[in-house]
Amino acid sequence: MTRILYALCGSDRSRPFSPHVWKTVLSLKHKGLDFDTAPVAFTEIPVIENEATTMVPLLRDGAHLVKDSFDIALYLEHAYPDRPSLFGGKGGEAMARFVESWSQTTLHTTLMRIIILDIHDRLDPVDQTYFRTSREARLGTTLEAFVEANGQAELDSLAEKLGPLRTTLKRQPFLGGETPLFADYIVFGALQWARITSPKALLQDGDPVKDWFERCLDLHGGAGRSVTAA
Amino acid sequence: MTRILYALCGSDRSRPFSPHVWKTVLSLKHKGLDFDTAPVAFTEIPVIENEATTMVPLLRDGAHLVKDSFDIALYLEHAYPDRPSLFGGKGGEAMARFVESWSQTTLHTTLMRIIILDIHDRLDPVDQTYFRTSREARLGTTLEAFVEANGQAELDSLAEKLGPLRTTLKRQPFLGGETPLFADYIVFGALQWARITSPKALLQDGDPVKDWFERCLDLHGGAGRSVTAA
Repeated sequence: MTRILYALCGSDRSRPFSPHVWKTVLSLKHKGLDFDTAPVAFTEIPVIENEATTMVPLLRDGAHLVKDSFDIALYLEHAYPDRPSLFGGKGGEAMARFVESWSQTTLHTTLMRIIILDIHDRLDPVDQTYFRTSREARLGTTLEAFVEANGQAELDSLAEKLGPLRTTLKRQPFLGGETPLFADYIVFGALQWARITSPKALLQDGDPVKDWFERCLDLHGGAGRSVTAA
Repeated sequence: MTRILYALCGSDRSRPFSPHVWKTVLSLKHKGLDFDTAPVAFTEIPVIENEATTMVPLLRDGAHLVKDSFDIALYLEHAYPDRPSLFGGKGGEAMARFVESWSQTTLHTTLMRIIILDIHDRLDPVDQTYFRTSREARLGTTLEAFVEANGQAELDSLAEKLGPLRTTLKRQPFLGGETPLFADYIVFGALQWARITSPKALLQDGDPVKDWFERCLDLHGGAGRSVTAA
């Protein structure tokens, strides 16, 4: 059986950095499923698997082709029900959507404003052109001006924005409780994206969020540490 | 069997307003459990049930006395396992803690800054004195100055702060999925607290959060509507 995870990379093909792909890496590890990683650059995504997607992750699992990290987690949960659960029941599945919404709304927006130029700098020239053109059209300004105007303020606001996560982690070691669930991988993916692309220090020593992130890096044989920090 | 829920009230004893008590009201209804409501004012809380608590909700369930809305939900889940689940499994139980942390960190802080004077105005004189003294010591200013300085800005920020909830509710009718769970009651409690104490309009027509809040008010025979809006 062929299992391939298509993973976004920059000029260094051994450093996948997409937050959503990292959610799927840990989902596959959580289920104990072997897979090959196929690195793809931004401008290569539209042609893989017969133009199957415009975004990664994309998982080829034998005859099945599944995209979107949450849909992949749902697919894995149903296709491999005898492996450890990614959701811990229907309530956990529903509430993981809230964790995803919080992560997208609060965390991704903030992190992107901090690391967008660092991401750009790690891409091949053709992808730099694509990335700059598409992102600057959205932002209405240059990447440099955007980071100059927003980066430090967003970095200063990050600790407070992590408040709901911090409060939870003072009570229990993972969002999933005593052991991690897909909800943990959702938030881990965002911080791993920043860890791999940017040298900026985001989390302070002594912060329960940092301790949890380190625990997540250790999971499944240290899968998250297979790519070093920027 | 005697089942009594102690519920915080102001001068009108038929209008319990504590957000945490409302979480428990809907938890009991969710489990299909009958109960009597015992109204208590702020300054009466320390003497009920032989000085059992300094905060409500407090639930007397026969020989059992349980405080804290989350602990009460856990107690009900274990004491009445054959009734509908409040968590939908262990994952839902763990992630409801994240919903609680988000609601406390993000929503309660904001709502308190909007409605604190409205709450004060609904109390008996002796409780007004307690409330004003204790809150002004925390805030370092008068209730009036605090609301004047913060109220409108917090009201203006509320729609954005509800972003993670809104995104989730565009996908599914409840935080619990197709049907409500304790996670819904956590957030409902906060908005119900504001609905009962303050005439300020917090949610706009057409907002999926408002539609969800109305659905929550309809639950369990319209239990949330048993107290009218301020």
